[in-house]
Amino acid sequence: MTTTLISGGTVVGATGRAHADVVVDGETIVAVLQPGSALLGTDVAASVDRVIDATGKYVIPGGIDAHTHMELPFGGTEASDTFESGTRAAAHGGTTSIIDFAVQTYGQRIEDGLAAWHERADGNCAIDYGFHQIVGDVNEASLEAMKRLPDEGITSFKMFMAYPGVFYSDDAQILKAMQVSRDTGMLTMMHAENGPAIDVLAQQLVEQGKTDPYYHGVARAWEMEEEATHRAIMLAKLTGAPLYVVHVSAKQAVEQLAWARDKGQNVYGETCPQYLYLSLEDQLGAKSDEWGAFEGAKWVCSPPLRSRAEGHQESIWQALRTNDLQMVSTDHCPFCMKDQKELGLGDFRKIPNGIGSIEHRMDLMYQGVVTGEITLERWVELTSTTPARMFGLYGKKGVIQPGADADIVVYDPEGHTSIGYEKTHHMNIDHSAWEGYEIDGHVDTVMSRGKVVVENDTYLGAKGDGRYLRRGLSQYLI
Amino acid sequence: MTTTLISGGTVVGATGRAHADVVVDGETIVAVLQPGSALLGTDVAASVDRVIDATGKYVIPGGIDAHTHMELPFGGTEASDTFESGTRAAAHGGTTSIIDFAVQTYGQRIEDGLAAWHERADGNCAIDYGFHQIVGDVNEASLEAMKRLPDEGITSFKMFMAYPGVFYSDDAQILKAMQVSRDTGMLTMMHAENGPAIDVLAQQLVEQGKTDPYYHGVARAWEMEEEATHRAIMLAKLTGAPLYVVHVSAKQAVEQLAWARDKGQNVYGETCPQYLYLSLEDQLGAKSDEWGAFEGAKWVCSPPLRSRAEGHQESIWQALRTNDLQMVSTDHCPFCMKDQKELGLGDFRKIPNGIGSIEHRMDLMYQGVVTGEITLERWVELTSTTPARMFGLYGKKGVIQPGADADIVVYDPEGHTSIGYEKTHHMNIDHSAWEGYEIDGHVDTVMSRGKVVVENDTYLGAKGDGRYLRRGLSQYLI
Amino acid sequence: MTTTLISGGTVVGATGRAHADVVVDGETIVAVLQPGSALLGTDVAASVDRVIDATGKYVIPGGIDAHTHMELPFGGTEASDTFESGTRAAAHGGTTSIIDFAVQTYGQRIEDGLAAWHERADGNCAIDYGFHQIVGDVNEASLEAMKRLPDEGITSFKMFMAYPGVFYSDDAQILKAMQVSRDTGMLTMMHAENGPAIDVLAQQLVEQGKTDPYYHGVARAWEMEEEATHRAIMLAKLTGAPLYVVHVSAKQAVEQLAWARDKGQNVYGETCPQYLYLSLEDQLGAKSDEWGAFEGAKWVCSPPLRSRAEGHQESIWQALRTNDLQMVSTDHCPFCMKDQKELGLGDFRKIPNGIGSIEHRMDLMYQGVVTGEITLERWVELTSTTPARMFGLYGKKGVIQPGADADIVVYDPEGHTSIGYEKTHHMNIDHSAWEGYEIDGHVDTVMSRGKVVVENDTYLGAKGDGRYLRRGLSQYLI
Amino acid sequence: MTTTLISGGTVVGATGRAHADVVVDGETIVAVLQPGSALLGTDVAASVDRVIDATGKYVIPGGIDAHTHMELPFGGTEASDTFESGTRAAAHGGTTSIIDFAVQTYGQRIEDGLAAWHERADGNCAIDYGFHQIVGDVNEASLEAMKRLPDEGITSFKMFMAYPGVFYSDDAQILKAMQVSRDTGMLTMMHAENGPAIDVLAQQLVEQGKTDPYYHGVARAWEMEEEATHRAIMLAKLTGAPLYVVHVSAKQAVEQLAWARDKGQNVYGETCPQYLYLSLEDQLGAKSDEWGAFEGAKWVCSPPLRSRAEGHQESIWQALRTNDLQMVSTDHCPFCMKDQKELGLGDFRKIPNGIGSIEHRMDLMYQGVVTGEITLERWVELTSTTPARMFGLYGKKGVIQPGADADIVVYDPEGHTSIGYEKTHHMNIDHSAWEGYEIDGHVDTVMSRGKVVVENDTYLGAKGDGRYLRRGLSQYLI
Repeated sequence: MTTTLISGGTVVGATGRAHADVVVDGETIVAVLQPGSALLGTDVAASVDRVIDATGKYVIPGGIDAHTHMELPFGGTEASDTFESGTRAAAHGGTTSIIDFAVQTYGQRIEDGLAAWHERADGNCAIDYGFHQIVGDVNEASLEAMKRLPDEGITSFKMFMAYPGVFYSDDAQILKAMQVSRDTGMLTMMHAENGPAIDVLAQQLVEQGKTDPYYHGVARAWEMEEEATHRAIMLAKLTGAPLYVVHVSAKQAVEQLAWARDKGQNVYGETCPQYLYLSLEDQLGAKSDEWGAFEGAKWVCSPPLRSRAEGHQESIWQALRTNDLQMVSTDHCPFCMKDQKELGLGDFRKIPNGIGSIEHRMDLMYQGVVTGEITLERWVELTSTTPARMFGLYGKKGVIQPGADADIVVYDPEGHTSIGYEKTHHMNIDHSAWEGYEIDGHVDTVMSRGKVVVENDTYLGAKGDGRYLRRGLSQYLI
Repeated sequence: MTTTLISGGTVVGATGRAHADVVVDGETIVAVLQPGSALLGTDVAASVDRVIDATGKYVIPGGIDAHTHMELPFGGTEASDTFESGTRAAAHGGTTSIIDFAVQTYGQRIEDGLAAWHERADGNCAIDYGFHQIVGDVNEASLEAMKRLPDEGITSFKMFMAYPGVFYSDDAQILKAMQVSRDTGMLTMMHAENGPAIDVLAQQLVEQGKTDPYYHGVARAWEMEEEATHRAIMLAKLTGAPLYVVHVSAKQAVEQLAWARDKGQNVYGETCPQYLYLSLEDQLGAKSDEWGAFEGAKWVCSPPLRSRAEGHQESIWQALRTNDLQMVSTDHCPFCMKDQKELGLGDFRKIPNGIGSIEHRMDLMYQGVVTGEITLERWVELTSTTPARMFGLYGKKGVIQPGADADIVVYDPEGHTSIGYEKTHHMNIDHSAWEGYEIDGHVDTVMSRGKVVVENDTYLGAKGDGRYLRRGLSQYLI
Repeated sequence: MTTTLISGGTVVGATGRAHADVVVDGETIVAVLQPGSALLGTDVAASVDRVIDATGKYVIPGGIDAHTHMELPFGGTEASDTFESGTRAAAHGGTTSIIDFAVQTYGQRIEDGLAAWHERADGNCAIDYGFHQIVGDVNEASLEAMKRLPDEGITSFKMFMAYPGVFYSDDAQILKAMQVSRDTGMLTMMHAENGPAIDVLAQQLVEQGKTDPYYHGVARAWEMEEEATHRAIMLAKLTGAPLYVVHVSAKQAVEQLAWARDKGQNVYGETCPQYLYLSLEDQLGAKSDEWGAFEGAKWVCSPPLRSRAEGHQESIWQALRTNDLQMVSTDHCPFCMKDQKELGLGDFRKIPNGIGSIEHRMDLMYQGVVTGEITLERWVELTSTTPARMFGLYGKKGVIQPGADADIVVYDPEGHTSIGYEKTHHMNIDHSAWEGYEIDGHVDTVMSRGKVVVENDTYLGAKGDGRYLRRGLSQYLI
Repeated sequence: MTTTLISGGTVVGATGRAHADVVVDGETIVAVLQPGSALLGTDVAASVDRVIDATGKYVIPGGIDAHTHMELPFGGTEASDTFESGTRAAAHGGTTSIIDFAVQTYGQRIEDGLAAWHERADGNCAIDYGFHQIVGDVNEASLEAMKRLPDEGITSFKMFMAYPGVFYSDDAQILKAMQVSRDTGMLTMMHAENGPAIDVLAQQLVEQGKTDPYYHGVARAWEMEEEATHRAIMLAKLTGAPLYVVHVSAKQAVEQLAWARDKGQNVYGETCPQYLYLSLEDQLGAKSDEWGAFEGAKWVCSPPLRSRAEGHQESIWQALRTNDLQMVSTDHCPFCMKDQKELGLGDFRKIPNGIGSIEHRMDLMYQGVVTGEITLERWVELTSTTPARMFGLYGKKGVIQPGADADIVVYDPEGHTSIGYEKTHHMNIDHSAWEGYEIDGHVDTVMSRGKVVVENDTYLGAKGDGRYLRRGLSQYLI
């Protein structure tokens, strides 16, 4: 067992910061000490195997990305990051845990869907990983199987109000699943877009010859995200289920969440970096020499990038401050332009949906600290502490305190990170949604359960370092 | 310098809890350790002067009561607790810091008002104490003097929209003071009741012969708290000042705070235990053999206890969960029935306003954990962590982490506390507003800057233990 | 052509009243005159064929009941009032026009559904009648047929978010139909209850043995009316369609309408007398010697009678004042207990849904004037003027002015009406939902297009008096 | 007594229109007839003294401007229109009634203030006129005098939350006056701007050398209108008084009104044409060769013109549709630039506040019909019917029906009106706030109590034609 001292840094948590040293023994944090590395006459620095100097830097709990889709089958292809490549990229970006979505497809048993996901992930991950369960076929057997998921360490499941014919659940199915949520305490996660209505609009656009990626954003109108959000809230209210709305993109959806929360309902929402920085006009409507108007396909995801002019970004930053949104995940689901996004040439409906951001979430959100949108503490809360609490990992993850897993990032606020395909990223994509972003700040050192896995931009870990996370029930209320 | 180990307990913070040992060296927490008291081969328990066994108990940061009025002159008399008696009572109740209100009266210089308060407090307190500044006379000299308050460690000031002719400021004065708040970063605290309107109602009631304490509650209608709250919010919005509304009692005032916060305005609110448990019907309207209908005078405070039937209590508990209210203080301002409250026999307007609760706040709020209204973590956040952050004390106060002052309470959830005049309370009042409350939980040990000041209900401290707290700017946003 | 003078009464309209005489020539109002019946030297009273003395009485435009279901097939039976019996009852109650719902069933052509309705109504009605079109099967042919409905004098169509497998439309269908509404100006009418969710709840209740009529009200939770109302509003917003929500019963649904209207959206709502007077507790939960707990079946309608304790009635009266609800219809759809409601013995889901009120709407709503809930003018507006404007009849109907059809009711505020099966009602039902209601006020004389059809509670009209009303587009905005 | 037939026109009312002829006998409307001018065999056209052909034109009730300030003393000068000149201009613009504000100044008896106003108006007006009472000094005598105002035909009084030291009432005074409003049924009218706060901002701007008219708009921030509106609402709620907020200019104030009305409170609001068309940027910030930046003084009024960029105009048009604002008055209070507005050269605070619009209100609001903002019916409702109902004139004014005063305007939608100083206006001002406005539509004929006072832009009336209007209580609810 190796012992490590991280000395001289500023330990940052959700409510404040402390100048403190951190002692790691094996996989675990064993002490947080007054800086100077002395305790009751013991010279701690001299007693440990290794000292990491964090002077002038932030010492934060490793990032937790609670929304990833490694190897997700979608539209006839599969997300381009495997658990191996995706989690390695995550580590590079200061993320030390992910929660991916195990998929039950229509007609499949939940147990089989989950087993297949373990098959994909087990032994391949660079960092710790847990699963939510996508329930793609709510039926009597599924409802029974769901009740047994907590025994598997899975305490949240996702349903889709979008994608009829694929993952879609109707309101009757949602109601039944939410009753399980209420009875078991599992968190109901919801993709809140009115799929049937959106599909009509999309088809009409295609019939009018409006087939470019831009129209993906037109078809998936914010009204249909707002509507589905409200519907999910009311079904949750009716059943008493706690609700977590994934990837909130529209200010009007935020208003619905705020409305429900003001009334004391346990309703939560996450957003993703793309909804804070990218837009319908600038990205979905982009043109390039290489791809022409199909350039926008790089940013086709659902919900879509919203109109900058409509003020969604300001509203979502504000909601991150007001806690009407509680956390930031990526919805990491990368597809290459070549052979993958290309499937939608001539019909935006066939573009695989997804953006790759897992490597950049911590950096991108730190820019909110730089620009004054959020505080340093809120950065840690949004990216690590609340994800841990929300999904039953807190204590082990999401905090720097004795007994916690030694998932620690040393972040240098004076460092710099350039994002771009050929330069720095480690995700398995042939482009970057974030190409050209220049970041103030840098992930210096990443420790996963006591092992330094990234240092000086060098990967020191190994395939299979990551362990499966058996999660408890949510530790977050209102 | 004494060293202490608090071992075996559950350390509770705002975002979660940890089984951890805490090491105190002199006045300061120097380490938080994995339980078992060993670190890198060192037997910590053997190395310290004293070990406090906290097994099965909560180890929490000492309570911070950010709203007290020791020795406050009011209505021709003075609050019956001195800094000496009041802070000793606080210590008994697990509160290790107070922020009292230095008073500038009309016609007085702020400097003189502040100096008088130091005179009263310095050398007399059992626990650490800071000051807010009441600005009772906004004029050019006051506005200049206010700008220098941060240099004195005073980073918040209070104004009154109530009490015309005493502390009252009109909107022009409030606007000017809020401009200072915006420019300096000081927090504007507001007693939000429309005093001029209330005084009309009160006078009309007295003219109708409705002079009992009950009519104090009728005169101070919730509409006038709601109105003043909205007005304070808009003046804060106009100027850009951060706003903190004291002692929120009405659900409609809460709605105004929620409305402003939803829009991203930095507006905060505290409530007090009396608004969570006591009511117009049950207390203000009480009758006794000794006092008849004047019994209600014990609970005359402003804003008044609200009608139970109108649902204010449920709403305020909810707001404590939704964070529309951020903290709980006492507004401790006790007056004896004999010679003091009696001044208002025959005219409720002459009853000195105030209730004594400083000793019971931690216990009373813990009942919210027992009944499921709030979580254990939220209890600590509402009573200690947020008060520290809100008023610029965090890091030293409000958290158990290395470098913090060793203000620590060992709280026994299996203990019991009976509240009543002749039984347990140490406040200088001839009655108790909380007589007969039976509390699950008990303050076992109270440490103030490393010194055990209360143990087994015995006071071990000394007059003057407490030091003046020079506070920084608020560390709390939204 | 007969000429009539209605003299000495108070003519009441939506904005005010006038002491005025009304001259009818043939089927049409030709003059409104200063009282005294003289015009430019002409003694009008002497010139007409007949004089009706309305001294001390109200002279109002005949009631328009915009929501009736004569002969509606439902649950294996058919509403017990034919066009003949139902419209005759209407006339007795001061209603001189109805708008019934022509039904397109699943698999049927709209044209055929409409033709069948003409078949039922034409030549059988006592008063004038128009049709809305129920669209029970949205498909390409239906969408085309809908566009031709205005040529038939049908300018509004209804869809159902309830009743899966019967009338239910999904959101994709609703969206497409609303696009027709936007393009043609036809009004989209919506039965806003989330049918799929409600059906789950209903089935679960039945499985638990909760089969009494009372559980009809439990299954159809207000949350699912609120949700569907919001969903309809958002689909209308997305498409730009004007929306009219039928039979609003829940205060939370009203809040949704108010929310949309405050934003300037053309969204309307009607309520029915049953939601203003009757309740879950008192009627659905009623027991009788004859029927036991099945007594409640008399009041099984959808949405259901709501809990009195929850305050829906107060909220709906208020909305009638604030114009968040614009009109009052009956949703007249009577079923006898014997052989009809009885179908649901042992399973509330099989009870035919509907209440018979067409004869009592004017009287029941006049009680709101008596109790001070609404003004006299608002009574006329809610029951006649706004229905006329909303559904494109104004000018001919809904107002007493020259050129208008002489549909006139002389209403005696000093009269009295007792409601009960064996006493006064003319509807074809074996019971009355309003048995025992004692009404201040009385319908004295009813004139339909110039012909007195009811006088002294005696029917003077004939089958087939009523003509089909070809309606124009809505004349009502916001 | 002269008899007149207005034939062939479209009579427009608040709920609809009719092709109808109108017969006037003396001062009164005696009949509304089916077009064609025949009744029961009588050839009406042949029987009358005069026929006015209104074919192709609108026949509407004469406009009622419920907010004018003839000869108002303000800032050391007096509004430049006398009752004589102002009412003559009104007549030219199709307005046949005004309600002016009798003024009680500080220290004056209400009776004396009212008597002085009669002195000014009686015998001088071209059209009928009533009074509201400004209460500028709420004291015991005033409160008693107010109770007697209904006997004088004055059923509404105005107070000012602005203008400290002039008309200002504090909240205690407002509360007492509102109690009179509740007890008598008189309508409380409120100028809702927070004067004390605005005066601080204004003084600070002047001290910074920001003295141009533009800064009038900066000083009178919308936040202070919103605030005062909310405060007035809450004081009205507390007392039970009906409230009418004059000249609403800010969208946020509208939101407050909508909020109160949604809760069922009897709260009303008017706006003025200037808030619908003119703006801070375009008018207050205007520059001219003649006046430089002082050009903006022409449009100095309170509340000020609001920022076009902030979207107030769209919001106010919307509120006129949603009935969150119920009517449009002018706040007619003209001052010449020469000698009057000039008083504020170098200090915007000294510019007399007011704009002259009485002549153009009907035309300006008709533009809302032309552009589709409001319907034709709503135009009549906003400018005539609701003012009559709101202020107790309905029946005599605000409607075309038998028994009503023959105040009738024949308005030609095909006509055209050019507004400008040297061209068409009859107000006594040396400029026009509306210079250059080209209006679709034209006031053809204006009849005041049966007398044609304007025809072909020619004034045919005489000084003193107008009579004092003894008003009843408000006939408008919610």
